[in-house]
Amino acid sequence: MSFSNIDVSPAYIRLTKRFEKIATINEAAAMLGWDSSAMMPPGGGPARGDQLAVLAGLSHGLLTDPATAADIAEAMVGPMAGEAAAGDWHAANLALMRHAHTRATALPPDLVEAQSRASSACEKVWRIARAENDFSSVAPLLAEIVHLSREAAAALAPALKLSPYDALMDGYQPGIGTADVEPIFADYQSFLATALPAAIERQNAAPAPILPRGPFAEAAQEALCRAMSERVGLDFNAARLDRSTHPFCGGTPTDTRITTRYNSGDFAQSLLGVLHETGHAMYERGLPKAFARQPVGEAAGMAAHESQSLIVEMQAVRSDAFLRFLGPELHKTFGGDPAPYAARNLGLMFRRIGRGYIRVEADEMTYPAHVILRFRLEQALIAGDLAVADLPGAWNDGFFEVLGIRPPDDSSGCLQDIHWYDGAFGYFPSYTLGAMAAAQLMAAARRALPDLDNALTRGDFGPLMGWLRAKVHGVGSLLGFNDLLRAATGKPLDPADFTAHLTARYL
Amino acid sequence: MSFSNIDVSPAYIRLTKRFEKIATINEAAAMLGWDSSAMMPPGGGPARGDQLAVLAGLSHGLLTDPATAADIAEAMVGPMAGEAAAGDWHAANLALMRHAHTRATALPPDLVEAQSRASSACEKVWRIARAENDFSSVAPLLAEIVHLSREAAAALAPALKLSPYDALMDGYQPGIGTADVEPIFADYQSFLATALPAAIERQNAAPAPILPRGPFAEAAQEALCRAMSERVGLDFNAARLDRSTHPFCGGTPTDTRITTRYNSGDFAQSLLGVLHETGHAMYERGLPKAFARQPVGEAAGMAAHESQSLIVEMQAVRSDAFLRFLGPELHKTFGGDPAPYAARNLGLMFRRIGRGYIRVEADEMTYPAHVILRFRLEQALIAGDLAVADLPGAWNDGFFEVLGIRPPDDSSGCLQDIHWYDGAFGYFPSYTLGAMAAAQLMAAARRALPDLDNALTRGDFGPLMGWLRAKVHGVGSLLGFNDLLRAATGKPLDPADFTAHLTARYL
Repeated sequence: MSFSNIDVSPAYIRLTKRFEKIATINEAAAMLGWDSSAMMPPGGGPARGDQLAVLAGLSHGLLTDPATAADIAEAMVGPMAGEAAAGDWHAANLALMRHAHTRATALPPDLVEAQSRASSACEKVWRIARAENDFSSVAPLLAEIVHLSREAAAALAPALKLSPYDALMDGYQPGIGTADVEPIFADYQSFLATALPAAIERQNAAPAPILPRGPFAEAAQEALCRAMSERVGLDFNAARLDRSTHPFCGGTPTDTRITTRYNSGDFAQSLLGVLHETGHAMYERGLPKAFARQPVGEAAGMAAHESQSLIVEMQAVRSDAFLRFLGPELHKTFGGDPAPYAARNLGLMFRRIGRGYIRVEADEMTYPAHVILRFRLEQALIAGDLAVADLPGAWNDGFFEVLGIRPPDDSSGCLQDIHWYDGAFGYFPSYTLGAMAAAQLMAAARRALPDLDNALTRGDFGPLMGWLRAKVHGVGSLLGFNDLLRAATGKPLDPADFTAHLTARYL
Repeated sequence: MSFSNIDVSPAYIRLTKRFEKIATINEAAAMLGWDSSAMMPPGGGPARGDQLAVLAGLSHGLLTDPATAADIAEAMVGPMAGEAAAGDWHAANLALMRHAHTRATALPPDLVEAQSRASSACEKVWRIARAENDFSSVAPLLAEIVHLSREAAAALAPALKLSPYDALMDGYQPGIGTADVEPIFADYQSFLATALPAAIERQNAAPAPILPRGPFAEAAQEALCRAMSERVGLDFNAARLDRSTHPFCGGTPTDTRITTRYNSGDFAQSLLGVLHETGHAMYERGLPKAFARQPVGEAAGMAAHESQSLIVEMQAVRSDAFLRFLGPELHKTFGGDPAPYAARNLGLMFRRIGRGYIRVEADEMTYPAHVILRFRLEQALIAGDLAVADLPGAWNDGFFEVLGIRPPDDSSGCLQDIHWYDGAFGYFPSYTLGAMAAAQLMAAARRALPDLDNALTRGDFGPLMGWLRAKVHGVGSLLGFNDLLRAATGKPLDPADFTAHLTARYL
């Protein structure tokens, strides 16, 4: 990082070095995390847990060191004092440093350790409980997690001047809280009540998709995934594609590690999954290099991140335009009858909607309903208005309310997601905020780039990615979530673009 | 680690926690080092360098922290004061902590950093210089490395009460110095002067080996490597086998990462390489679990480590006994004419000797000659008796003296090994000390286990590995190199077992 021509304090310069070190330790941990999922033999588990705990402790120790607080205080009254000019990278960086420090010091170390131990214990029991449809076996452990999360929320809230639940949300998507989300989710619920039956009726009236015949060889699927990911823009000189049980995008901006899993009967699973992760990867790779390893150089939050995976997977890849390009590629890869690979048929295949119990299998129209339910339930759990023992009933009632069907069992209900059992409260809204932001960004990109759909029809992601790099990736965390959207699209988060997209695609 | 029933000071307990943390950071670095060689895309290089440098700095910082010195001083006058009883694990652990601390604090941080920078710069130029046979291009960088290594040796020598060169050797194999090595190497040179011509004559009189016809499919080679490595005892629930340009054994005791490379025309390269690395892996895996992440729980040095790779690769695998088992396995794997896979023919194939220029391609009889030359030259470089500019001439003269042939160029001469260009002086003797120790241990194992060769004929490594685990692996660094050998074989390092082995095999 260069400080030429700007007036910053020595304390701020010390902070940038400290945060660079913290980020570098976190990169090491990210790589080991990838290895745990993609490479590590089972015997390595316990030692890996120790390695990650030591790195987390070192990183946390640097952040909460009294010298950090002293430097922040000194930098705040130095040349960077006063209200930062909007768009001032260093001022934003310092504010983010203070925010990270506030979050880290607000939590007593004993509580952090207790949370880590409780999550680790609960997660193991949850895996069995889900498999055996036995909520009662994991309920006491989940109650402990909720208890500790409430303590954490109570400790964070005054430090961040947020409500307890919003203080947890802030850990995933800073700058967005219940007051933003409530009305958006309420509106969406109303939209869905009429849109979903209508869309299902329309789908039932349309021809059924012709399903291509497998098996689809794993090597062919992998080559296809790699080629399409490269087409989006990923450079495999600085990235890898591997296998893992739960696909993710990890690693670092210059060494991205994408994983997927292959189903020999369904190539769409790996293909769409890899393109989703490629969207995440393109964000990381496009972050501002001048502020690498600084808070302002990081992605702007989980909702912002999800907007980048979904703009690729849902907005661009499943568009009629790109499917016209994709069809012949698929036929070239897998051969056989060309009929299933016609763009219109791919649309029927890749854009099925319907009511289901499982969030990760949900289509883009019903997915928000899954999130809305979780948002309400986790608010109630953190507020103390819902006891863990009452969760299964509340889940099933709530599910009926948002989607009109009742889960047959807890494995298809409140046991399905790892998040709560791992201590992650406040994360779920990010998925839907990201989906909405993706639609809003795509609409703005279409206005800015009249040739966008023609480019996608040629399999050319260059224009879209160039626009996203300028408007989102390259901006890092300079702007808050709504300001980022305002600068890119002319308005803060507005779900109207998302419902317009759904209406155009499904109604 | 448990301290029940022993009288140790609080300072010592603090030290064990500190060294556990250091070892855990080093484990993380080891994993990232493996990833760099086996997985990382090229774009990840610069960031990985930063990650490893930060981890090295954290580990070094913990070791050289004034609190470490204070705790060592306190522990030394506490209940563990006085001469440690031989075989007292905690006393040995404390002595090793002090030794590590002495080494780390003896070197000024500026010198360590200058060495790191010089090695990094020199290594890059060396790769080109070796490819282009241009010593002069890398000579100034090597001169800087030698200069810094001399400074380091001068700083370490008084702290360790060793000569400068021995202080460098101590970094690779503690407890062995020039006074031990000189007479052993002089004797070996005399042995070789008569043994090598005689062995070559005998080889020339024997039939030429029948070479099996390739290509040997990579997947088949890999499956074979894996199966044979498992037969030695490696458990792939706690290990991986991958590819890298330069094969090595990395990772940690509970998550061992072996690499190899495959040559479609020669399966022996991957097979013998993997079995060599398996020997290293078995040592790491057999280290005393009660002292995991403590200095006394580590391997006893590089010579000790090499003894474990060579006892597998050279002593056991290339024995007539094991080749009788291996032959049918090879034929089952690769098919074709069974004649090349007869045990006698495999012996002719796997036990070729001859004069050559390249150390890493040398057979077990001439390999020590390569090491003896390097030992003498690096002593002279560190003593200041040999200028870098004179190295090529000294190399070629010395090579003629030990093996009777002159390298045609520097790429086949003083440019062939990375070690010096990477700043590693004092390492080379470990290879030959390890080979000699392997022969000595194998002789003792044969005496202790009369059924050893029958077991190898059945492909059963159990008895040999059980004996090594008890006598070497499980002893960690409790004993110095010579004491380890004395406890296992009844005598300190004695090259007579090695020359007896060579005489039996080649004469």
